[in-house]
Amino acid sequence: MKQFAASCLVLLAPLVFLPAIVPAEEGMWRPGQLPSLAEKLKALDPEVDAAALSDLTGHPMNAVIWLGGCTASFVSPQGLVITNHHCAYGSIQHNSTEENNLLENGFLAAGRAEELPAAPGSRVLVTVAVKDVTRSVLAAVPDGAGPRERYQAIEDRQKALVAKCEQDAGHRCRVAAYSGGLEYELIKQLEIRDVRLVHAPAHAIGKYGGDVDNWMWPRHTGDYAFYRAYVSPDGKPADYAEQNVPYRPRHHLRVSSRGVDSGDLVLVAGYPGSTSRYRLASEVEGVIQWDYPRRIEAFRQWHDIIDRAVAGREEKALKYASLQASLNNVIKNYRGMLEGFSKSDILERKGALEQDLQAWIEAGPASRSRLKTAAADLGELVAESQSGREAALYYDFLGGRSALLRAARRLYRLSRERQKPDGQREPGYQERDMVRIRERLKRIDRTFDPEVDRACWRRFVLNYAKLPAEQHVQAFDDWFGIRPAGLQEAELDRRLEEMYGQTRLGDPGTRLSWMKAAPGDFEASRDPFIRMAVSLYDSDMEREERDKELQGRFDQARPRFMEALIAYNQSRGKSVYPDANSTLRVTYGTVKGYSAKDGMRYLPFTTLRGILEKDTGQEPFNAPPGQLKLIRGREFGNYHVKALGSVPVNFLSTLDATGGNSGSPTLNGRGELVGLLFDGNWESIVADWDFIPAVTRSIHVDIRYALWIMEHLDGAHHLLAEMGIEAGRSSGETAALSTGR
Amino acid sequence: MKQFAASCLVLLAPLVFLPAIVPAEEGMWRPGQLPSLAEKLKALDPEVDAAALSDLTGHPMNAVIWLGGCTASFVSPQGLVITNHHCAYGSIQHNSTEENNLLENGFLAAGRAEELPAAPGSRVLVTVAVKDVTRSVLAAVPDGAGPRERYQAIEDRQKALVAKCEQDAGHRCRVAAYSGGLEYELIKQLEIRDVRLVHAPAHAIGKYGGDVDNWMWPRHTGDYAFYRAYVSPDGKPADYAEQNVPYRPRHHLRVSSRGVDSGDLVLVAGYPGSTSRYRLASEVEGVIQWDYPRRIEAFRQWHDIIDRAVAGREEKALKYASLQASLNNVIKNYRGMLEGFSKSDILERKGALEQDLQAWIEAGPASRSRLKTAAADLGELVAESQSGREAALYYDFLGGRSALLRAARRLYRLSRERQKPDGQREPGYQERDMVRIRERLKRIDRTFDPEVDRACWRRFVLNYAKLPAEQHVQAFDDWFGIRPAGLQEAELDRRLEEMYGQTRLGDPGTRLSWMKAAPGDFEASRDPFIRMAVSLYDSDMEREERDKELQGRFDQARPRFMEALIAYNQSRGKSVYPDANSTLRVTYGTVKGYSAKDGMRYLPFTTLRGILEKDTGQEPFNAPPGQLKLIRGREFGNYHVKALGSVPVNFLSTLDATGGNSGSPTLNGRGELVGLLFDGNWESIVADWDFIPAVTRSIHVDIRYALWIMEHLDGAHHLLAEMGIEAGRSSGETAALSTGR
Repeated sequence: MKQFAASCLVLLAPLVFLPAIVPAEEGMWRPGQLPSLAEKLKALDPEVDAAALSDLTGHPMNAVIWLGGCTASFVSPQGLVITNHHCAYGSIQHNSTEENNLLENGFLAAGRAEELPAAPGSRVLVTVAVKDVTRSVLAAVPDGAGPRERYQAIEDRQKALVAKCEQDAGHRCRVAAYSGGLEYELIKQLEIRDVRLVHAPAHAIGKYGGDVDNWMWPRHTGDYAFYRAYVSPDGKPADYAEQNVPYRPRHHLRVSSRGVDSGDLVLVAGYPGSTSRYRLASEVEGVIQWDYPRRIEAFRQWHDIIDRAVAGREEKALKYASLQASLNNVIKNYRGMLEGFSKSDILERKGALEQDLQAWIEAGPASRSRLKTAAADLGELVAESQSGREAALYYDFLGGRSALLRAARRLYRLSRERQKPDGQREPGYQERDMVRIRERLKRIDRTFDPEVDRACWRRFVLNYAKLPAEQHVQAFDDWFGIRPAGLQEAELDRRLEEMYGQTRLGDPGTRLSWMKAAPGDFEASRDPFIRMAVSLYDSDMEREERDKELQGRFDQARPRFMEALIAYNQSRGKSVYPDANSTLRVTYGTVKGYSAKDGMRYLPFTTLRGILEKDTGQEPFNAPPGQLKLIRGREFGNYHVKALGSVPVNFLSTLDATGGNSGSPTLNGRGELVGLLFDGNWESIVADWDFIPAVTRSIHVDIRYALWIMEHLDGAHHLLAEMGIEAGRSSGETAALSTGR
Repeated sequence: MKQFAASCLVLLAPLVFLPAIVPAEEGMWRPGQLPSLAEKLKALDPEVDAAALSDLTGHPMNAVIWLGGCTASFVSPQGLVITNHHCAYGSIQHNSTEENNLLENGFLAAGRAEELPAAPGSRVLVTVAVKDVTRSVLAAVPDGAGPRERYQAIEDRQKALVAKCEQDAGHRCRVAAYSGGLEYELIKQLEIRDVRLVHAPAHAIGKYGGDVDNWMWPRHTGDYAFYRAYVSPDGKPADYAEQNVPYRPRHHLRVSSRGVDSGDLVLVAGYPGSTSRYRLASEVEGVIQWDYPRRIEAFRQWHDIIDRAVAGREEKALKYASLQASLNNVIKNYRGMLEGFSKSDILERKGALEQDLQAWIEAGPASRSRLKTAAADLGELVAESQSGREAALYYDFLGGRSALLRAARRLYRLSRERQKPDGQREPGYQERDMVRIRERLKRIDRTFDPEVDRACWRRFVLNYAKLPAEQHVQAFDDWFGIRPAGLQEAELDRRLEEMYGQTRLGDPGTRLSWMKAAPGDFEASRDPFIRMAVSLYDSDMEREERDKELQGRFDQARPRFMEALIAYNQSRGKSVYPDANSTLRVTYGTVKGYSAKDGMRYLPFTTLRGILEKDTGQEPFNAPPGQLKLIRGREFGNYHVKALGSVPVNFLSTLDATGGNSGSPTLNGRGELVGLLFDGNWESIVADWDFIPAVTRSIHVDIRYALWIMEHLDGAHHLLAEMGIEAGRSSGETAALSTGR
């Protein structure tokens, strides 16, 4: 696949125009944009090599890998991977037993043989090539195509590109759209499937502060863990097997035990998931005034129903613990957003920008006039999509929120899609997706209880029934006997009693057996959830068609608006980075505190002192006694920083990051790893919409804290050696962690 | 009274030994101690004149006055007085009506004629002389006197000294004991009784942040207000009268509009109420482990009973609002204390100090050996007094906590004391106390409701009934029919119903009429509260005798321990300031922020910015719209501080202060007023027991904030002129406050 020569990225860099004058901190830059920012970077640190940072095949970028959801990096030639503790959480939990609670005790494999398989589905994805496919994708759209046809043409071309790319066994490919479809890139990644857990500190270090400290500063979390990537003896990705050998990455990061100081340049390379920095004022307003308040309300209700349903029933509570934590987390996040918005003039600024942009277009040459309606056209689409938001939340998202109904719908859809040739199927129902579908169907039981499921769904159906008539879905109404006058609760309860009583989809074997069934089998089934899925199918498809047509219109309108915005910024000498889309980005800034309010300042570093201050002995502030003893005894070894009078634990930076960046290596100007990004501050929650340089901060584990724990508490000397860290005098008193069997 | 020449103070200074090496911040110094600290002060600010600070008749000390509870200072030759808004609160409230709510709107007298009488009982006390009377007081104790005799001899001598001193009309005198009775001073103060309210900002400025921000930083409170002292046309203290004229103080403070910077020396002169810095470890331990936890529990219960009793009854709620606020405040304070103690090693440090002290005494010359048992003797007394703490709290303090019983007891006691010559009466029942007794008896109705009073007392009696038998008081048990088996609630309710139903003490006229009654009248009365007071009298007296005997023993033991401690510190080159006792003290330190926890720092100044941040439009964060407009428009005038980018509002210092210091002038090295002390930070709550230099801070209003408000918002130009402040360009837009009638 010669055309994927990754170095071509340096040549492409199509969004870079002029020397950047954007604030140093804002920007999730595509690696190819970095050379244009070189002067800026040099000013911050003369040692930085911007050209190297844009080379995806070279050091250090090639060492940065994706775990799908989190970022990680290679830190040794033997495929040793470092990421966040919270990114490896599932794997640590997966290997924990009542007798050997690795989550609680931490884990350290004494040698390779003791490294444990990561949680099922764990992957290490190494980007091997990236290619601009904008022309290819857009050329697929026939002249004069309508929105629905445009949508399909783009999807079909993407599937074809991915299919061709994945002919290279052991690789996973995707087409990423930038700026709403202004550009497309085909990204090819080596997919390493044998991933093993090497080392994690105790939960009370790796998740110190827990949910209480989540998004908070001052922070004292040792959020790091180690994996190792394994491949078959001939170097190819392979399923877990004993004879597999460590993967030898082309590049790995050097770990610097010297760390960083306040004011130092830091860079982060990682895979930020999604931002919305270029939305219209009207889109942001809708989110502030409608979406977040409604979702907070609905999720709070959801959370409370589960609370009541699992009260005093440990087994059920455990099944829903993760969902409850997510709901709390999302509610806290939305509240943070609303708090951030309430203090912000974002709507005024966006409104002014839109006016300036329009004036600039209208004052410009005739060639620019084709963009005259770009903002207005997008605005109309936004208004149209907002008109369906009640149904989108209360029907599409919540109304079908029974795990059994979702399984039934997915299975019936699969049977219909399987009637088509693989290339024409809906994405998610192709042969390449079968493993994931199966995994998901199997996994349901771990997070499902029929009584709880039913209690939640019941409430959602009642909420849906109260929607205005025009937001209703006839087939759904028919199934539950919902009439304009509303829904009798007794009638609903009778129906639900019948459905949960008669269904056999609660059995995992039954669910899996339906994966091979033909549409006729479903249509003949008497299982109530299957029957409901069949009866909803046509209207589901109609709604999907409508959504796809709308999306086809967005696919045309959003890129036009972005083109106008980019040209306008270009005219003012400003580079534009595209919104995050789970592709590799680089952000740079400095180690820096901030003032959250008048009369106080958050300092850039926390230290071991703070652990003594916070510790209550109760989770989440229950540091291991051995650690407290080391701190009290000031056994700081080589990691004592004189200016701090202690060992640094976490630090703040002005870097621009978001979900997906978790586990990203934090690099100094020489490309050495000095920390791991693991969170943003409270004020950064709103940064997905609006980056405010004065207060938006990323939170990092200082690598010196990890190294201090590994050397003085956990005795992970062989890993320190593997990373080339020379341990200081090592304390005879440290105790090794419990090791695997 | 020539012997009271105040300058003698400079000569006395008996506690000053060697150049001080205590931490710069700790110490509520007696003015006479300042010359010995001169070097230290010079190092902080070469302009400071330590000798001047020790001269009570000179500038600036003579300008510092006492309001009884709060400190204040003269700031013009026409008797203009500045103090805290919270110190003038009662007077502002007193003059407020529904139509003219001065508290809410603020008040500015346009001229002298519009100045309003302060709340009844308001006083301005100007110290005119201080004399060491240690020898006189101690000489009164006969050789070989027992503790009870010692107590009485000291009390009688004090009363005699005061009586003689007060022969000079218009003066109030008291004998202050230092270091538990190691030294005594006779303090003579001019008592100005015509005090008038001149100016106060709106409540939303003067109490901005309210109870939420109480003890907190960052703070944005404009806690200042102005009085004026008036005297008769011939210059003598007089009751309020129209023909009275402003008092012309010998000295007044210059107000500096230049303010202070971070790191600058500041001094505060004021009347701190009480500290306990030299208590034994065992005393502090008792307070931490018993007193505070029990009081929190009891006060929380008290608060909750009132809450329930006044729920939905506005008139009752208003009567108890002040008590409820006090209970909340005290509970918050005690919790702060316990939080502070929990982080502190005070017991270890005190224990170590006691050991070192003992070792030093025992290693010393024979002359020192008489102090050998000082600490042990005091420790025994402490243990003995702790053995009665249950009864002290649940009987003495709470068990008699009916406003009517307290009035009845006071009245009967008065009738008994009035049988004696004035000079032999119990302090508080002498002729000089009659005005206060009458005021107090009148005032009861403002804070009393029979139903609420009864509900609270009922609970306290039930709590008392549960005490172990040895803590019981027979007469009290007899009255309520409390038996070893406990108390029947129904029996108690019947008795209370009868008492509250039959008493006439709820009527203020009746209460006052009893002031003249003879003991026989009480003994013949059928009023149940009077009867109860009579029936408790003998055992009350017995308890008082026991307490006085114990106090007589403390009066001997505490000074001996303090003598030892002072000598020990002297031997190590350390000055010792005596515990606060509502006498004039000077504390010095610097303007300085602090770190409350790892990873953050409180800055020394807050600014107007913080008011915009905090403002919610709801009390207590409801700054006047005119102020918000000035801030948004950045109309900072002469008070803009470039480094802050705004006008300073409050600042922190390392000064050592406590309750009673409220309203104290904060001085720069030249003795100019740069702020007003009005609070301490959260970490300073524990400072009454233990001053921790790293985190103990005082909170001041920056005078520049007051001046900015006066010039730009309140239009108090004539007061600025009176203080010699040259106003900057004055905004035409400012609106004057509502003026008095």
